[in-house]
Amino acid sequence: MTSQRYPYAAKGMIKRFARLHQKKYREREGCFLAEGLRTVSELLRQMPSVEALVALFVGADQLALIPFPERYREKLFLLEQEEMRRLAATTTSQGVIGVFRMGSEDRLSRADEGPSLVVALDDVQDPGNVGTIIRTAAWFGAAAVISGRGTADCYNPKSVRSSAGSLYGLELYSADDLGVELGRLQARGFHIVTASLQGTDIRAFKVWPPRLVLVIGNEANGVSLPIQKISDSMVMIPHGPASPHVESLNAAVSAAILISRFSLG
Amino acid sequence: MTSQRYPYAAKGMIKRFARLHQKKYREREGCFLAEGLRTVSELLRQMPSVEALVALFVGADQLALIPFPERYREKLFLLEQEEMRRLAATTTSQGVIGVFRMGSEDRLSRADEGPSLVVALDDVQDPGNVGTIIRTAAWFGAAAVISGRGTADCYNPKSVRSSAGSLYGLELYSADDLGVELGRLQARGFHIVTASLQGTDIRAFKVWPPRLVLVIGNEANGVSLPIQKISDSMVMIPHGPASPHVESLNAAVSAAILISRFSLG
Repeated sequence: MTSQRYPYAAKGMIKRFARLHQKKYREREGCFLAEGLRTVSELLRQMPSVEALVALFVGADQLALIPFPERYREKLFLLEQEEMRRLAATTTSQGVIGVFRMGSEDRLSRADEGPSLVVALDDVQDPGNVGTIIRTAAWFGAAAVISGRGTADCYNPKSVRSSAGSLYGLELYSADDLGVELGRLQARGFHIVTASLQGTDIRAFKVWPPRLVLVIGNEANGVSLPIQKISDSMVMIPHGPASPHVESLNAAVSAAILISRFSLG
Repeated sequence: MTSQRYPYAAKGMIKRFARLHQKKYREREGCFLAEGLRTVSELLRQMPSVEALVALFVGADQLALIPFPERYREKLFLLEQEEMRRLAATTTSQGVIGVFRMGSEDRLSRADEGPSLVVALDDVQDPGNVGTIIRTAAWFGAAAVISGRGTADCYNPKSVRSSAGSLYGLELYSADDLGVELGRLQARGFHIVTASLQGTDIRAFKVWPPRLVLVIGNEANGVSLPIQKISDSMVMIPHGPASPHVESLNAAVSAAILISRFSLG
Protein backbone atom coordinates (compact mmCIF):
# COMPACT_ATOMS: atom_id res chain seq x y z
CA MET A 1 0.00 0.00 0.00
CA THR A 2 1.73 3.12 -1.25
CA SER A 3 -0.97 5.26 0.37
CA GLN A 4 0.47 4.47 3.79
CA ARG A 5 3.48 6.60 2.97
CA TYR A 6 1.42 9.77 2.88
CA PRO A 7 -0.30 11.37 5.87
CA TYR A 8 -3.95 12.36 6.04
CA ALA A 9 -4.58 16.10 5.92
CA ALA A 10 -5.24 17.83 9.25
CA LYS A 11 -8.65 19.47 9.74
CA GLY A 12 -7.14 22.92 10.23
CA MET A 13 -5.29 22.68 6.96
CA ILE A 14 -8.46 21.80 5.02
CA LYS A 15 -10.32 24.66 6.66
CA ARG A 16 -7.55 27.09 5.79
CA PHE A 17 -7.36 26.08 2.15
CA ALA A 18 -11.16 25.98 1.74
CA ARG A 19 -11.03 29.76 2.24
CA LEU A 20 -9.29 30.01 -1.12
CA HIS A 21 -12.74 29.78 -2.69
CA GLN A 22 -12.97 33.46 -1.82
CA LYS A 23 -11.05 35.94 -3.91
CA LYS A 24 -9.90 38.02 -0.95
CA TYR A 25 -8.19 35.01 0.64
CA ARG A 26 -6.64 34.06 -2.69
CA GLU A 27 -5.16 37.53 -2.96
CA ARG A 28 -4.03 37.58 0.64
CA GLU A 29 -2.33 34.16 0.39
CA GLY A 30 -1.22 34.43 -3.24
CA CYS A 31 -2.55 30.91 -3.81
CA PHE A 32 -5.39 29.26 -5.69
CA LEU A 33 -7.24 25.94 -5.82
CA ALA A 34 -7.27 23.61 -8.81
CA GLU A 35 -9.67 20.66 -9.03
CA GLY A 36 -9.74 17.50 -11.08
CA LEU A 37 -7.04 15.11 -12.22
CA ARG A 38 -6.60 16.70 -15.65
CA THR A 39 -6.33 20.29 -14.47
CA VAL A 40 -4.02 19.43 -11.59
CA SER A 41 -1.79 17.16 -13.72
CA GLU A 42 -1.49 19.86 -16.35
CA LEU A 43 -0.55 22.50 -13.73
CA LEU A 44 2.03 20.13 -12.22
CA ARG A 45 3.50 19.72 -15.71
CA GLN A 46 3.45 23.45 -16.55
CA MET A 47 4.45 25.02 -13.25
CA PRO A 48 7.76 26.88 -13.43
CA SER A 49 9.25 24.96 -10.48
CA VAL A 50 8.10 22.59 -7.77
CA GLU A 51 7.93 25.60 -5.43
CA ALA A 52 4.71 26.64 -7.19
CA LEU A 53 2.92 23.68 -5.59
CA VAL A 54 1.75 24.38 -2.05
CA ALA A 55 -0.22 21.21 -1.34
CA LEU A 56 -1.72 18.28 -3.18
CA PHE A 57 -4.80 16.52 -1.78
CA VAL A 58 -5.66 13.12 -3.14
CA GLY A 59 -8.26 10.49 -2.28
CA ALA A 60 -6.61 7.18 -1.33
CA ASP A 61 -8.19 5.56 -4.41
CA GLN A 62 -6.85 8.24 -6.72
CA LEU A 63 -3.22 8.16 -5.58
CA ALA A 64 -2.27 5.69 -8.32
CA LEU A 65 -3.41 8.25 -10.95
CA ILE A 66 -0.87 10.90 -9.90
CA PRO A 67 2.30 10.74 -11.98
CA PHE A 68 5.45 10.59 -9.82
CA PRO A 69 3.75 11.36 -6.46
CA GLU A 70 7.12 11.01 -4.72
CA ARG A 71 8.17 14.29 -6.31
CA TYR A 72 5.66 16.03 -4.05
CA ARG A 73 6.28 13.90 -1.00
CA GLU A 74 6.31 16.67 1.59
CA LYS A 75 3.24 18.30 0.10
CA LEU A 76 1.00 15.35 -0.64
CA PHE A 77 -1.85 14.58 1.74
CA LEU A 78 -4.58 11.98 1.61
CA LEU A 79 -8.15 13.12 2.00
CA GLU A 80 -11.37 11.35 2.94
CA GLN A 81 -14.25 11.56 0.47
CA GLU A 82 -16.24 13.81 2.79
CA GLU A 83 -13.41 16.27 3.36
CA MET A 84 -12.79 16.33 -0.37
CA ARG A 85 -16.31 17.70 -0.77
CA ARG A 86 -15.55 20.52 1.69
CA LEU A 87 -12.52 21.58 -0.27
CA ALA A 88 -14.00 21.15 -3.76
CA ALA A 89 -16.19 23.77 -5.42
CA THR A 90 -17.45 21.38 -8.04
CA THR A 91 -18.64 17.80 -8.01
CA THR A 92 -15.98 17.03 -10.60
CA SER A 93 -12.91 17.24 -8.40
CA GLN A 94 -12.51 13.48 -9.01
CA GLY A 95 -10.64 13.18 -5.75
CA VAL A 96 -7.70 15.39 -6.77
CA ILE A 97 -7.22 18.98 -5.55
CA GLY A 98 -4.10 21.10 -5.72
CA VAL A 99 -3.15 24.36 -4.04
CA PHE A 100 -0.79 26.36 -6.23
CA ARG A 101 1.04 29.65 -5.96
CA MET A 102 -0.07 32.45 -8.27
CA GLY A 103 2.63 33.99 -10.35
CA SER A 104 3.15 34.13 -14.03
CA GLU A 105 5.91 34.89 -16.42
CA ASP A 106 6.85 38.48 -16.96
CA ARG A 107 6.32 38.03 -20.69
CA LEU A 108 4.61 41.32 -21.48
CA SER A 109 7.24 43.47 -19.76
CA ARG A 110 9.88 41.58 -21.72
CA ALA A 111 8.01 42.14 -25.02
CA ASP A 112 9.71 45.46 -25.61
CA GLU A 113 9.74 45.23 -29.34
CA GLY A 114 8.74 42.78 -32.04
CA PRO A 115 5.40 41.11 -32.57
CA SER A 116 3.30 40.53 -29.50
CA LEU A 117 -0.30 39.63 -28.76
CA VAL A 118 -2.14 40.69 -25.62
CA VAL A 119 -5.79 39.91 -24.80
CA ALA A 120 -7.74 42.36 -22.61
CA LEU A 121 -11.04 41.38 -20.96
CA ASP A 122 -13.56 44.15 -20.37
CA ASP A 123 -16.21 42.87 -17.93
CA VAL A 124 -16.17 39.23 -19.13
CA GLN A 125 -18.25 37.80 -16.31
CA ASP A 126 -18.33 34.07 -16.85
CA PRO A 127 -15.31 32.32 -15.26
CA GLY A 128 -15.62 29.52 -17.83
CA ASN A 129 -15.18 32.08 -20.61
CA VAL A 130 -12.22 33.70 -18.83
CA GLY A 131 -10.48 30.34 -18.38
CA THR A 132 -11.16 29.27 -21.97
CA ILE A 133 -9.79 32.56 -23.33
CA ILE A 134 -6.60 32.14 -21.24
CA ARG A 135 -6.24 28.59 -22.60
CA THR A 136 -6.64 29.77 -26.21
CA ALA A 137 -4.30 32.74 -25.69
CA ALA A 138 -1.66 30.41 -24.18
CA TRP A 139 -2.01 28.00 -27.13
CA PHE A 140 -1.31 30.77 -29.62
CA GLY A 141 1.58 32.19 -27.58
CA ALA A 142 0.01 35.45 -26.35
CA ALA A 143 2.20 37.45 -23.95
CA ALA A 144 -0.54 38.39 -21.48
CA VAL A 145 -4.21 38.43 -20.54
CA ILE A 146 -5.35 41.60 -18.74
CA SER A 147 -8.54 41.58 -16.66
CA GLY A 148 -10.47 44.83 -16.53
CA ARG A 149 -13.04 45.65 -13.86
CA GLY A 150 -16.02 43.27 -13.68
CA THR A 151 -14.09 40.42 -15.25
CA ALA A 152 -14.29 37.08 -13.44
CA ASP A 153 -11.17 36.24 -11.44
CA CYS A 154 -8.63 34.16 -13.41
CA TYR A 155 -7.99 32.18 -10.23
CA ASN A 156 -11.63 31.33 -9.54
CA PRO A 157 -11.75 27.48 -9.43
CA LYS A 158 -14.06 27.48 -12.49
CA SER A 159 -11.67 29.68 -14.49
CA VAL A 160 -8.78 27.48 -13.40
CA ARG A 161 -10.65 24.42 -14.62
CA SER A 162 -11.45 25.94 -18.03
CA SER A 163 -7.90 27.20 -18.42
CA ALA A 164 -6.77 23.54 -18.45
CA GLY A 165 -3.52 24.24 -16.65
CA SER A 166 -2.39 27.10 -18.89
CA LEU A 167 -2.23 29.76 -16.15
CA TYR A 168 1.56 29.64 -15.95
CA GLY A 169 1.90 30.06 -19.71
CA LEU A 170 1.39 33.82 -19.92
CA GLU A 171 1.34 36.96 -17.82
CA LEU A 172 -1.96 37.50 -16.01
CA TYR A 173 -2.81 40.77 -14.34
CA SER A 174 -5.72 43.03 -13.44
CA ALA A 175 -6.16 46.68 -14.35
CA ASP A 176 -8.42 48.81 -12.17
CA ASP A 177 -8.80 51.19 -15.05
CA LEU A 178 -8.53 49.26 -18.29
CA GLY A 179 -8.61 52.48 -20.33
CA VAL A 180 -5.48 53.82 -18.61
CA GLU A 181 -3.71 50.48 -19.05
CA LEU A 182 -4.59 50.34 -22.76
CA GLY A 183 -3.24 53.89 -23.12
CA ARG A 184 0.05 52.75 -21.58
CA LEU A 185 0.23 49.90 -24.07
CA GLN A 186 -0.55 52.25 -26.97
CA ALA A 187 2.46 54.30 -25.87
CA ARG A 188 4.52 51.08 -26.14
CA GLY A 189 3.47 50.63 -29.77
CA PHE A 190 0.47 48.35 -29.32
CA HIS A 191 -2.64 48.75 -31.48
CA ILE A 192 -5.90 48.35 -29.61
CA VAL A 193 -8.36 46.26 -31.66
CA THR A 194 -11.79 45.80 -30.11
CA ALA A 195 -14.31 43.07 -30.94
CA SER A 196 -17.70 44.58 -31.73
CA LEU A 197 -20.76 43.69 -33.79
CA GLN A 198 -20.48 47.24 -35.16
CA GLY A 199 -16.82 46.83 -36.20
CA THR A 200 -15.16 46.32 -39.58
CA ASP A 201 -15.55 42.90 -41.20
CA ILE A 202 -12.61 40.74 -40.12
CA ARG A 203 -11.95 39.85 -43.78
CA ALA A 204 -10.99 43.47 -44.44
CA PHE A 205 -7.93 43.10 -42.17
CA LYS A 206 -5.42 41.79 -44.70
CA VAL A 207 -2.49 42.64 -42.45
CA TRP A 208 -2.73 42.78 -38.68
CA PRO A 209 -0.64 45.20 -36.61
CA PRO A 210 2.34 43.20 -35.30
CA ARG A 211 1.84 44.47 -31.75
CA LEU A 212 -1.80 44.02 -30.92
CA VAL A 213 -4.12 44.15 -27.92
CA LEU A 214 -7.40 42.37 -28.66
CA VAL A 215 -10.23 43.56 -26.39
CA ILE A 216 -13.13 41.18 -25.65
CA GLY A 217 -16.22 42.60 -23.97
CA ASN A 218 -19.09 41.58 -21.71
CA GLU A 219 -21.18 38.57 -22.78
CA ALA A 220 -24.40 40.57 -23.10
CA ASN A 221 -23.29 44.13 -23.75
CA GLY A 222 -19.94 43.87 -25.52
CA VAL A 223 -17.08 46.29 -24.95
CA SER A 224 -17.89 49.43 -22.94
CA LEU A 225 -18.07 52.82 -24.71
CA PRO A 226 -14.97 54.41 -23.11
CA ILE A 227 -12.85 51.46 -24.28
CA GLN A 228 -14.43 51.57 -27.75
CA LYS A 229 -13.50 55.24 -27.96
CA ILE A 230 -9.79 54.75 -27.31
CA SER A 231 -9.56 51.73 -29.64
CA ASP A 232 -7.51 52.05 -32.82
CA SER A 233 -9.97 49.82 -34.66
CA MET A 234 -13.05 47.69 -34.12
CA VAL A 235 -13.43 44.28 -35.69
CA MET A 236 -16.55 42.21 -36.40
CA ILE A 237 -16.95 38.50 -37.19
CA PRO A 238 -19.54 38.28 -39.98
CA HIS A 239 -22.30 35.66 -39.91
CA GLY A 240 -23.17 33.23 -42.70
CA PRO A 241 -24.98 34.25 -45.92
CA ALA A 242 -28.51 33.73 -44.55
CA SER A 243 -29.80 35.69 -41.58
CA PRO A 244 -28.30 34.04 -38.49
CA HIS A 245 -30.58 32.13 -36.16
CA VAL A 246 -28.64 33.39 -33.21
CA GLU A 247 -27.95 36.87 -31.88
CA SER A 248 -24.22 36.62 -31.30
CA LEU A 249 -21.27 34.33 -30.68
CA ASN A 250 -20.05 33.18 -27.27
CA ALA A 251 -17.32 35.52 -25.91
CA ALA A 252 -14.66 32.78 -25.74
CA VAL A 253 -15.56 31.71 -29.29
CA SER A 254 -15.24 35.28 -30.62
CA ALA A 255 -11.90 35.60 -28.87
CA ALA A 256 -10.68 32.30 -30.35
CA ILE A 257 -11.66 33.22 -33.91
CA LEU A 258 -9.95 36.61 -33.63
CA ILE A 259 -6.81 35.30 -31.88
CA SER A 260 -6.42 32.51 -34.46
CA ARG A 261 -6.89 34.98 -37.30
CA PHE A 262 -4.21 37.25 -35.87
CA SER A 263 -1.84 34.34 -35.18
CA LEU A 264 -2.31 32.24 -38.33
CA GLY A 265 -3.21 34.92 -40.85
CA MET B 1 -51.24 44.25 -11.66
CA THR B 2 -50.76 42.47 -14.97
CA SER B 3 -49.75 39.31 -13.12
CA GLN B 4 -53.35 38.75 -12.08
CA ARG B 5 -54.25 37.93 -15.65
CA TYR B 6 -52.15 34.76 -15.64
CA PRO B 7 -52.89 31.63 -13.59
CA TYR B 8 -50.44 29.88 -11.26
CA ALA B 9 -49.15 26.55 -12.57
CA ALA B 10 -50.78 23.42 -11.16
CA LYS B 11 -48.57 21.03 -9.17
CA GLY B 12 -49.15 18.14 -11.57
CA MET B 13 -48.00 20.23 -14.49
CA ILE B 14 -44.74 21.17 -12.76
CA LYS B 15 -44.09 17.55 -11.84
CA ARG B 16 -44.71 16.45 -15.44
CA PHE B 17 -42.40 19.03 -16.97
CA ALA B 18 -39.67 18.46 -14.35
CA ARG B 19 -39.30 14.99 -15.91
CA LEU B 20 -37.90 16.68 -18.99
CA HIS B 21 -34.57 16.84 -17.18
CA GLN B 22 -34.25 13.19 -18.22
CA LYS B 23 -33.41 12.43 -21.82
CA LYS B 24 -35.87 9.54 -22.10
CA TYR B 25 -38.78 11.81 -21.19
CA ARG B 26 -37.57 14.50 -23.57
CA GLU B 27 -37.54 11.93 -26.37
CA ARG B 28 -40.93 10.51 -25.39
CA GLU B 29 -42.57 13.95 -25.21
CA GLY B 30 -40.57 15.60 -28.00
CA CYS B 31 -40.08 18.61 -25.72
CA PHE B 32 -37.23 20.26 -23.85
CA LEU B 33 -36.67 22.79 -21.06
CA ALA B 34 -34.97 26.15 -21.49
CA GLU B 35 -33.91 28.25 -18.52
CA GLY B 36 -33.07 31.90 -18.07
CA LEU B 37 -34.48 35.08 -19.55
CA ARG B 38 -31.91 35.34 -22.33
CA THR B 39 -32.16 31.76 -23.55
CA VAL B 40 -35.96 31.72 -23.39
CA SER B 41 -36.34 35.14 -25.08
CA GLU B 42 -34.01 34.07 -27.87
CA LEU B 43 -35.96 30.81 -28.42
CA LEU B 44 -39.24 32.74 -28.47
CA ARG B 45 -37.72 34.99 -31.11
CA GLN B 46 -36.25 32.16 -33.21
CA MET B 47 -38.98 29.51 -32.96
CA PRO B 48 -40.57 28.71 -36.33
CA SER B 49 -44.12 29.36 -35.04
CA VAL B 50 -45.88 29.95 -31.74
CA GLU B 51 -46.83 26.24 -31.79
CA ALA B 52 -43.23 25.44 -30.81
CA LEU B 53 -43.89 26.87 -27.34
CA VAL B 54 -45.57 24.41 -25.00
CA ALA B 55 -45.53 26.38 -21.76
CA LEU B 56 -43.85 29.42 -20.27
CA PHE B 57 -43.27 29.64 -16.50
CA VAL B 58 -42.47 33.00 -15.02
CA GLY B 59 -41.98 34.31 -11.49
CA ALA B 60 -44.48 37.12 -10.74
CA ASP B 61 -41.56 39.55 -10.39
CA GLN B 62 -40.14 38.58 -13.77
CA LEU B 63 -43.33 38.94 -15.81
CA ALA B 64 -42.47 42.50 -16.80
CA LEU B 65 -39.27 41.23 -18.45
CA ILE B 66 -41.08 39.01 -20.98
CA PRO B 67 -41.63 40.80 -24.29
CA PHE B 68 -45.28 40.66 -25.41
CA PRO B 69 -46.49 38.11 -22.82
CA GLU B 70 -50.02 38.37 -24.24
CA ARG B 71 -48.81 36.45 -27.31
CA TYR B 72 -48.45 33.37 -25.12
CA ARG B 73 -51.56 33.99 -23.03
CA GLU B 74 -52.88 30.41 -22.99
CA LYS B 75 -49.44 29.00 -22.25
CA LEU B 76 -48.10 31.39 -19.64
CA PHE B 77 -48.16 30.37 -15.99
CA LEU B 78 -46.90 32.07 -12.88
CA LEU B 79 -44.62 30.12 -10.59
CA GLU B 80 -43.62 30.51 -6.95
CA GLN B 81 -39.91 30.81 -6.21
CA GLU B 82 -39.82 27.38 -4.58
CA GLU B 83 -41.53 25.62 -7.48
CA MET B 84 -39.19 27.40 -9.86
CA ARG B 85 -36.33 25.63 -8.10
CA ARG B 86 -37.98 22.25 -8.67
CA LEU B 87 -38.28 22.87 -12.39
CA ALA B 88 -34.88 24.49 -12.89
CA ALA B 89 -31.67 22.50 -13.32
CA THR B 90 -29.47 25.47 -12.63
CA THR B 91 -29.50 28.29 -10.14
CA THR B 92 -29.49 30.69 -13.06
CA SER B 93 -33.04 30.23 -14.28
CA GLN B 94 -33.66 33.83 -13.17
CA GLY B 95 -37.34 33.05 -12.74
CA VAL B 96 -38.00 32.23 -16.40
CA ILE B 97 -38.41 28.67 -17.76
CA GLY B 98 -39.84 27.62 -21.10
CA VAL B 99 -40.96 24.25 -22.43
CA PHE B 100 -40.44 24.03 -26.18
CA ARG B 101 -41.09 21.45 -28.84
CA MET B 102 -38.06 19.85 -30.50
CA GLY B 103 -37.95 20.07 -34.22
CA SER B 104 -35.58 21.72 -36.54
CA GLU B 105 -35.44 22.74 -40.13
CA ASP B 106 -34.84 20.08 -42.73
CA ARG B 107 -31.88 22.05 -44.03
CA LEU B 108 -29.47 19.20 -44.68
CA SER B 109 -31.95 17.14 -46.73
CA ARG B 110 -32.63 20.26 -48.80
CA ALA B 111 -28.90 20.87 -49.33
CA ASP B 112 -28.83 18.63 -52.41
CA GLU B 113 -26.17 20.55 -54.21
CA GLY B 114 -24.07 23.64 -53.74
CA PRO B 115 -21.89 24.59 -50.80
CA SER B 116 -22.94 23.25 -47.45
CA LEU B 117 -21.36 22.89 -44.02
CA VAL B 118 -22.23 20.15 -41.55
CA VAL B 119 -20.65 19.65 -38.11
CA ALA B 120 -20.45 16.12 -36.68
CA LEU B 121 -19.75 15.47 -33.00
CA ASP B 122 -17.95 12.25 -32.10
CA ASP B 123 -18.31 11.66 -28.35
CA VAL B 124 -18.25 15.36 -27.34
CA GLN B 125 -19.29 14.85 -23.73
CA ASP B 126 -19.66 18.30 -22.25
CA PRO B 127 -23.16 19.76 -22.84
CA GLY B 128 -21.70 23.28 -22.66
CA ASN B 129 -19.37 22.43 -25.56
CA VAL B 130 -22.23 20.87 -27.56
CA GLY B 131 -24.44 23.94 -27.09
CA THR B 132 -21.60 26.35 -27.91
CA ILE B 133 -20.76 24.43 -31.10
CA ILE B 134 -24.43 24.55 -32.17
CA ARG B 135 -24.46 28.32 -31.52
CA THR B 136 -21.29 28.84 -33.60
CA ALA B 137 -22.54 26.56 -36.41
CA ALA B 138 -25.86 28.46 -36.51
CA TRP B 139 -24.03 31.81 -36.66
CA PHE B 140 -22.02 30.70 -39.70
CA GLY B 141 -25.07 29.19 -41.42
CA ALA B 142 -24.24 25.47 -41.12
CA ALA B 143 -26.98 23.13 -42.40
CA ALA B 144 -26.80 20.60 -39.57
CA VAL B 145 -25.12 19.33 -36.44
CA ILE B 146 -25.01 15.52 -36.13
CA SER B 147 -24.48 13.89 -32.73
CA GLY B 148 -22.63 10.60 -32.72
CA ARG B 149 -22.72 8.12 -29.84
CA GLY B 150 -21.46 9.44 -26.51
CA THR B 151 -22.18 13.04 -27.42
CA ALA B 152 -24.12 15.04 -24.83
CA ASP B 153 -27.78 15.57 -25.70
CA CYS B 154 -28.43 18.81 -27.62
CA TYR B 155 -31.61 19.23 -25.57
CA ASN B 156 -29.94 18.84 -22.16
CA PRO B 157 -30.78 22.08 -20.28
CA LYS B 158 -27.06 22.96 -20.15
CA SER B 159 -26.65 22.49 -23.92
CA VAL B 160 -29.80 24.54 -24.48
CA ARG B 161 -28.36 27.31 -22.34
CA SER B 162 -25.02 27.37 -24.17
CA SER B 163 -26.76 27.25 -27.56
CA ALA B 164 -28.27 30.68 -26.73
CA GLY B 165 -31.53 29.96 -28.52
CA SER B 166 -29.98 28.76 -31.79
CA LEU B 167 -31.49 25.25 -31.72
CA TYR B 168 -34.13 26.09 -34.33
CA GLY B 169 -31.49 27.51 -36.68
CA LEU B 170 -30.20 24.26 -38.12
CA GLU B 171 -31.01 20.59 -38.44
CA LEU B 172 -30.08 18.56 -35.36
CA TYR B 173 -30.04 14.80 -35.37
CA SER B 174 -28.32 11.79 -33.80
CA ALA B 175 -26.57 8.97 -35.59
CA ASP B 176 -26.24 5.63 -33.78
CA ASP B 177 -23.36 4.80 -36.09
CA LEU B 178 -21.59 8.00 -37.05
CA GLY B 179 -19.32 6.13 -39.49
CA VAL B 180 -22.31 4.91 -41.50
CA GLU B 181 -23.86 8.37 -41.51
CA LEU B 182 -20.62 9.99 -42.68
CA GLY B 183 -20.44 7.37 -45.48
CA ARG B 184 -23.94 8.38 -46.59
CA LEU B 185 -22.85 12.02 -46.68
CA GLN B 186 -19.70 11.15 -48.66
CA ALA B 187 -22.00 9.53 -51.23
CA ARG B 188 -23.83 12.87 -51.42
CA GLY B 189 -20.60 14.68 -52.28
CA PHE B 190 -19.51 15.78 -48.81
CA HIS B 191 -15.84 15.73 -47.83
CA ILE B 192 -15.19 14.52 -44.30
CA VAL B 193 -12.58 16.70 -42.59
CA THR B 194 -11.59 15.64 -39.09
CA ALA B 195 -9.96 17.83 -36.43
CA SER B 196 -6.86 16.12 -35.04
CA LEU B 197 -3.58 17.16 -33.43
CA GLN B 198 -1.96 14.76 -35.96
CA GLY B 199 -3.65 16.41 -38.96
CA THR B 200 -2.37 18.74 -41.67
CA ASP B 201 -1.69 22.35 -40.66
CA ILE B 202 -4.88 24.38 -41.27
CA ARG B 203 -2.80 26.95 -43.22
CA ALA B 204 -2.12 24.32 -45.91
CA PHE B 205 -5.85 24.30 -46.82
CA LYS B 206 -5.89 27.14 -49.36
CA VAL B 207 -9.26 26.04 -50.75
CA TRP B 208 -11.83 24.14 -48.72
CA PRO B 209 -14.16 21.56 -50.28
CA PRO B 210 -17.48 23.35 -50.87
CA ARG B 211 -19.47 20.53 -49.28
CA LEU B 212 -17.82 19.75 -46.00
CA VAL B 213 -18.50 17.77 -42.84
CA LEU B 214 -16.26 18.91 -40.01
CA VAL B 215 -15.81 16.23 -37.32
CA ILE B 216 -15.02 17.30 -33.75
CA GLY B 217 -13.96 14.64 -31.28
CA ASN B 218 -13.96 13.85 -27.59
CA GLU B 219 -12.51 16.48 -25.22
CA ALA B 220 -9.74 14.19 -23.92
CA ASN B 221 -9.20 11.64 -26.68
CA GLY B 222 -10.12 13.40 -29.92
CA VAL B 223 -11.87 11.71 -32.82
CA SER B 224 -12.09 7.89 -32.64
CA LEU B 225 -9.94 5.74 -34.93
CA PRO B 226 -12.76 4.33 -37.12
CA ILE B 227 -13.91 7.87 -37.91
CA GLN B 228 -10.34 9.01 -38.57
CA LYS B 229 -9.97 6.13 -41.04
CA ILE B 230 -12.94 7.08 -43.20
CA SER B 231 -12.06 10.80 -43.17
CA ASP B 232 -10.99 12.43 -46.44
CA SER B 233 -8.55 14.65 -44.57
CA MET B 234 -7.43 15.55 -41.07
CA VAL B 235 -6.79 19.12 -40.03
CA MET B 236 -4.72 20.54 -37.16
CA ILE B 237 -4.69 24.02 -35.60
CA PRO B 238 -1.03 24.90 -35.01
CA HIS B 239 0.12 26.52 -31.78
CA GLY B 240 2.19 29.70 -31.45
CA PRO B 241 5.92 29.88 -32.23
CA ALA B 242 7.10 28.95 -28.72
CA SER B 243 6.19 25.65 -27.12
CA PRO B 244 2.60 26.00 -25.92
CA HIS B 245 1.94 26.08 -22.21
CA VAL B 246 -1.20 24.04 -22.69
CA GLU B 247 -1.83 20.58 -24.09
CA SER B 248 -4.73 21.36 -26.42
CA LEU B 249 -7.60 23.70 -27.24
CA ASN B 250 -11.13 23.41 -25.87
CA ALA B 251 -13.37 21.38 -28.24
CA ALA B 252 -15.82 24.26 -28.86
CA VAL B 253 -12.87 26.60 -29.53
CA SER B 254 -11.31 24.20 -32.05
CA ALA B 255 -14.68 23.85 -33.75
CA ALA B 256 -15.10 27.64 -33.90
CA ILE B 257 -11.66 28.26 -35.40
CA LEU B 258 -12.23 25.57 -38.06
CA ILE B 259 -15.82 26.61 -38.88
CA SER B 260 -14.81 30.27 -39.20
CA ARG B 261 -11.89 29.32 -41.43
CA PHE B 262 -14.16 27.31 -43.70
CA SER B 263 -16.82 30.04 -43.75
CA LEU B 264 -14.67 33.15 -44.06
CA GLY B 265 -11.66 31.76 -45.92
